[in-house]
Amino acid sequence: ADRGDGLRLRELLDALHYADIADLLGFLSQDYREEVIPWIPSDALADILPELDDDIREEVIESMHTADIAEVLQELDSDDAAAVFEDLEEDQQKAVLAAMPESEREAIVTSLAYEEETAGRLMQREVMAAPAFWTVGHTIDHMRENGDDLPELFFDIYVIDPSHKPVGAVPVSVLMRTKRDLPLSQLMEPITEITVDQDQEEVAYVFEKYHLISAPVVDESGRLVGQITVDDIVNIIQAENREDILALGGVSDIEGRDTGIMGMVKSRLPWLLINLATAFASVTVINAFQGEIVKMVVLASLMPVVASIGGNFGTQALTVSVRALSARELTAANATRTLWREVVSGWLVGACVAAGLAAVTFIFWHDLKLAGVIAGAILINFTMAALAGTLIPMGASKLGIDPAGASPIFVTLVTDFCGFFSFLGLAAIILL
Amino acid sequence: ADRGDGLRLRELLDALHYADIADLLGFLSQDYREEVIPWIPSDALADILPELDDDIREEVIESMHTADIAEVLQELDSDDAAAVFEDLEEDQQKAVLAAMPESEREAIVTSLAYEEETAGRLMQREVMAAPAFWTVGHTIDHMRENGDDLPELFFDIYVIDPSHKPVGAVPVSVLMRTKRDLPLSQLMEPITEITVDQDQEEVAYVFEKYHLISAPVVDESGRLVGQITVDDIVNIIQAENREDILALGGVSDIEGRDTGIMGMVKSRLPWLLINLATAFASVTVINAFQGEIVKMVVLASLMPVVASIGGNFGTQALTVSVRALSARELTAANATRTLWREVVSGWLVGACVAAGLAAVTFIFWHDLKLAGVIAGAILINFTMAALAGTLIPMGASKLGIDPAGASPIFVTLVTDFCGFFSFLGLAAIILL
Repeated sequence: ADRGDGLRLRELLDALHYADIADLLGFLSQDYREEVIPWIPSDALADILPELDDDIREEVIESMHTADIAEVLQELDSDDAAAVFEDLEEDQQKAVLAAMPESEREAIVTSLAYEEETAGRLMQREVMAAPAFWTVGHTIDHMRENGDDLPELFFDIYVIDPSHKPVGAVPVSVLMRTKRDLPLSQLMEPITEITVDQDQEEVAYVFEKYHLISAPVVDESGRLVGQITVDDIVNIIQAENREDILALGGVSDIEGRDTGIMGMVKSRLPWLLINLATAFASVTVINAFQGEIVKMVVLASLMPVVASIGGNFGTQALTVSVRALSARELTAANATRTLWREVVSGWLVGACVAAGLAAVTFIFWHDLKLAGVIAGAILINFTMAALAGTLIPMGASKLGIDPAGASPIFVTLVTDFCGFFSFLGLAAIILL
Repeated sequence: ADRGDGLRLRELLDALHYADIADLLGFLSQDYREEVIPWIPSDALADILPELDDDIREEVIESMHTADIAEVLQELDSDDAAAVFEDLEEDQQKAVLAAMPESEREAIVTSLAYEEETAGRLMQREVMAAPAFWTVGHTIDHMRENGDDLPELFFDIYVIDPSHKPVGAVPVSVLMRTKRDLPLSQLMEPITEITVDQDQEEVAYVFEKYHLISAPVVDESGRLVGQITVDDIVNIIQAENREDILALGGVSDIEGRDTGIMGMVKSRLPWLLINLATAFASVTVINAFQGEIVKMVVLASLMPVVASIGGNFGTQALTVSVRALSARELTAANATRTLWREVVSGWLVGACVAAGLAAVTFIFWHDLKLAGVIAGAILINFTMAALAGTLIPMGASKLGIDPAGASPIFVTLVTDFCGFFSFLGLAAIILL
């Protein structure tokens, strides 16, 4: 029965796209996963491995022989092979390298020599390059003969000069509708070069801005060493966005579907503990006004409103600034104008909120002065919130710190402190 | 002098990539922009228009003659042409349509007949399709002869059956390295079909998951009507992520670089006014405990800490849930497990925070009972925060509401209410 089930399972798996099998493995519990893994068709395995989350990939690899791992890596383009290889344990890495032919081994070692999150890591070494004097016909014939050395898929043919520097690109779809006797030099379009040490976020920005499908990667001396294709860029864009969203939400580490509960604790606790420390800034402020609160206990009810609504406006300003910074819409050129826009909108939004809050306060407590105090405190706090929500992420970015990471804590610190201080301070002066 | 400057300007603009010119226009103030626009080379104008923000595009178009607009639209692929056309004013639209040849006119009208944010809007109608029995050689010859009707760039040749339904695809790079006499039927790979009415977010998900470069779009009867390419998808992914980040930060509308100050106020004020209403839930709770606060004023200092740190944990849980929902990692299949993981991690993180806060409280106020009360309140509030941060976005998603949009307000409402109520309530019972 077990064997029959296995065969049916194999049939099912055969019908699935490799990305769906990877998804399936992610959703199964570990026990089921162990049952399924041996039945995955070996030709699908190469495609599946780069798709898996780290810990599931580890499980799958544990179930494989060294020779099989080596074979799978050779089937992959060099960027995917390096990514899978990198996560192997050290002795596994040695064994796998030993089981590979010289050239493949070198490809992986070279790829891993580049720093993480750079273009060098991201690129695949397989490219289609041709000199400018080649004709369309010659180029097509060359590709027919050397199909095995070419990348699995490619979209541009890079035109190179005698020193192997890229000087242009011919999209495959352009090459193919052109007469055979035209030289590449007449077809080629300008290229946007990527250098091996460029940061992957920078690379993603260039792809997005220029709507690139692929781009040539050059080494320090400008020679063509590989290419990056847009499908890798989509993953990076998603990863960077994910990092921004999580960081703004105060989840410091990259928490995923398969993070254990201890991992969740580790990713969230540090931020909350720092938050606890900054929260005591508010406690100190409130403590200083204990006498006033005892005299007029309604202050205690209203003060959190001033702090929290100011904090929310600060978060709005912060979110817009962080987003503009990562989309490179906020630069030194428009920093002053942006800050000024934020402050003015802070006054306008603050004025509306202050008017609303003052009206409600007057209706409930029939105290015109109290209504004035809370309106004044809101205006002060919104000004501070606009400044903090803009200047803190700009400053972080200038210092090379991720603006999404630390900024929320400091913005909240400013709006809490100012919220309590301005409201209780104004109350002490005007009401008591 | 003015004319000389103009010519130098034209030289500069000639050297720039169209995406850089678009960026430049975005950074210039309106006065400078008006000076620059007339000098943009007319062949670059077609590429620039789809890149511009709406209001700048409007300015550029105002400076153009109807005939020129009609010409520019004909140069663009149908998706870009429709996007530019859509933003014209109604009488402009009519004039431009009248100035276009029949076939181009039809293309734009058909494209705009699809609903916004669907695959129909996103696709370009130009595709390269061929029957399965064609050979590689015949296909290449056909493309050489009919170059003008083909899309500007394409990456896959769609293989169609006699009823014009796509049955497979041959990547251009595969076609080109194959011998001329092989039929397409032997080369073709399975396709992932998109239907015209599919939501663009869904389309982006499919592209990302299956690492697609292009995909065929079919109508209700399954016939090939267009294709979508990955460069459009990159824009959608960015737009969707941007929407998520802004919504989580309480910026309800899509605020961009060029939103006026009144636009900023409109995008932020509604959220803050709703927030003002929910904040009064806390005011009511605190009001009910005025007697206790007067008796023991330290409660007023400490209560905001319980509320705000619970709110921050709720935001963490919410951020992770929203992110998992939009990455489709959180589904009905693992909802219970996710909720349970969140609650357990809430207890663990809460226990650490409670211990720290209790210790600090005891050190400052030497009151063991007070320390116990604040620790207990933190544990209650973290449990509620974990539940609210997970269940609220799940519920919103189930109801078809954007989970990033309304959830933050309700999560904060829960953690504020529970924070003040649990702390002041426990204090009333145990301390007074």
